[in-house]
Amino acid sequence: MATEIATLGEFGLINHLTKSIELQNPETRYGIGDDCAVLKYGEDKDILVTTDLLMEGVHFDLTYLPMKHLGYKSVMVNLSDIYAMGGMPKQITVSLALSKRFSVEDMEDFYDGLRLACEEHQVDIVGGDTTSSRTGLAISITAIGEVEHGKAIFRNGAKETDLICVSGDLGAAYMGFQLLEREKEVYYKQIETAKTDAERMAISQPDFSGREYLLERQMKPEARRDIILKLREAGIQPTAMMDISDGLSSELLHICTQSKCGCRVYEERIPIDYQTAVMAEELNMNLTTAALNGGEDYELLFTVPIADHEKIEQVEGVKLIGHITKESLGCALITRDDAEFELKAQGWNPLKK
Amino acid sequence: MATEIATLGEFGLINHLTKSIELQNPETRYGIGDDCAVLKYGEDKDILVTTDLLMEGVHFDLTYLPMKHLGYKSVMVNLSDIYAMGGMPKQITVSLALSKRFSVEDMEDFYDGLRLACEEHQVDIVGGDTTSSRTGLAISITAIGEVEHGKAIFRNGAKETDLICVSGDLGAAYMGFQLLEREKEVYYKQIETAKTDAERMAISQPDFSGREYLLERQMKPEARRDIILKLREAGIQPTAMMDISDGLSSELLHICTQSKCGCRVYEERIPIDYQTAVMAEELNMNLTTAALNGGEDYELLFTVPIADHEKIEQVEGVKLIGHITKESLGCALITRDDAEFELKAQGWNPLKK
Repeated sequence: MATEIATLGEFGLINHLTKSIELQNPETRYGIGDDCAVLKYGEDKDILVTTDLLMEGVHFDLTYLPMKHLGYKSVMVNLSDIYAMGGMPKQITVSLALSKRFSVEDMEDFYDGLRLACEEHQVDIVGGDTTSSRTGLAISITAIGEVEHGKAIFRNGAKETDLICVSGDLGAAYMGFQLLEREKEVYYKQIETAKTDAERMAISQPDFSGREYLLERQMKPEARRDIILKLREAGIQPTAMMDISDGLSSELLHICTQSKCGCRVYEERIPIDYQTAVMAEELNMNLTTAALNGGEDYELLFTVPIADHEKIEQVEGVKLIGHITKESLGCALITRDDAEFELKAQGWNPLKK
Repeated sequence: MATEIATLGEFGLINHLTKSIELQNPETRYGIGDDCAVLKYGEDKDILVTTDLLMEGVHFDLTYLPMKHLGYKSVMVNLSDIYAMGGMPKQITVSLALSKRFSVEDMEDFYDGLRLACEEHQVDIVGGDTTSSRTGLAISITAIGEVEHGKAIFRNGAKETDLICVSGDLGAAYMGFQLLEREKEVYYKQIETAKTDAERMAISQPDFSGREYLLERQMKPEARRDIILKLREAGIQPTAMMDISDGLSSELLHICTQSKCGCRVYEERIPIDYQTAVMAEELNMNLTTAALNGGEDYELLFTVPIADHEKIEQVEGVKLIGHITKESLGCALITRDDAEFELKAQGWNPLKK
């Protein structure tokens, strides 16, 4: 008997394999099911652990992503998970499997990116594993961080009437991806049709002017340490939080499912950059769909008690996009013309068909 | 400019990339260069972290290794690193990248092995990442453990006159690997030459009777928790320790280099199982070479002060194989006929030619 994994998808498979796992150690406070696991080895602090496995051809395309950016991004996606629990990252381990086409210089570039990301976030590289691969590059990073004991912010703490907040803006990384994919195709087509050396020399590099923000969001995402620090400064303890890696819709549904509640988010309040809007127009894509499902934003999505309304409005770079409701009301988007649409997780799922 | 990675090898590359890394956080006690990193988040305990990345076709062969064994072994190789610091493992994270040929049932088998290993060692599975891969299977496991503050055993603590000890016996996992590879070839040859269905039906399964120990050592290695507990019970604090994954020679050289000392090990004292000896004879291989360089034993190699001589002789399953000397004497094997050979690291190095 062989059941295709695509029938379950990523979250279905994980749930299927791990649902019967029982935690045995008192040092394990929280296991599978959030951005990080939470461990307790001392009195004052809880430890956060998160890990990601990035595979060439699935998670990144070296045709346009330079090794240095890849190193930087690989760290950021993990740090983002630590911040998403309200914690501060402290260490990472880095494992790499390399095929023969990679050189020492490639690895130096990769490590330059790693180190830059670590310096910016005061994180130590404390170990790892470097080995070979039959094809392509595999990158596995584990990040470890800390949070004051009992202050880790889970996905399951949202309560009715809580306000839903999001940092930065959404959809730009996805538009950056679309742009890069389009230019890659154009480039390959030019190479295919060029018949003489002169024609090959004449192949133009794509012009990305006016699109810099989209590229930066795709190729050099920033984990939102600043937002965590600002929330602490403002004395705000979010009731639930996660980072947006698979798209706002998908993540909102995680929070609502785990918190056993519903939500209303308002289309007009979803923060979107001007370049994202222009690009969506150019590609004839629905802008709201891109912002809801695009993924790779690495912004923070969180809920705060309604009593913190005034405080949160003072926090720069955070936008209120809706509120939490009781479970029976479901999860819905309210459009500009006041129509209500059920939110669906159409975000990225590498194990779905 | 492109320098082939093979010119540096695994340890050379890691050293090249990480030599200039400076640790920034007070919570980081020890970074790259041992079996684990050592972190400090509380008063009484230090935290150990280790990680491994296993790639199909490089680290395991699913032609003969069942998924359940692969799950078990993947955990053991990480737990072994925690024990190698004198600690107790508490949690693991498990990341998997799967190509389309894997089914839900394959993953269930893999998780059965994972869970069995975790139960036996009282370890919690606390998180991970499950994603897709273009080809084959990639497994990344991070293990977290604890050790009493200040009691982590590093590679760099061996002192002149210390006794060199090893648990269990060596070379069996390597002989198991040789046996499996031989039988795989025989099997494929039979399939190639079989012309009729009857001939195909007649292809015999290999007979492994009398070789069970070799297969078990290769396919179901056991991390030596028992030895750590026995050493604690006997009141012995090793001065240096690591686990034997790449071969005794290679690991001894790591300890001597990092401890700035030399060593003498005695061929006649190296513990070798009867089945290992028979198999080496049959394959016309040098037995001592297999025991020195075979790898994948996952036994513990450690040094103790000479004052603990009597105590260590009482510990079951541990054998004295030599002693530490001053650095200028180098690292040597004394053969049965009293000849002295310099020890060389000929162990497994996935990034060497």
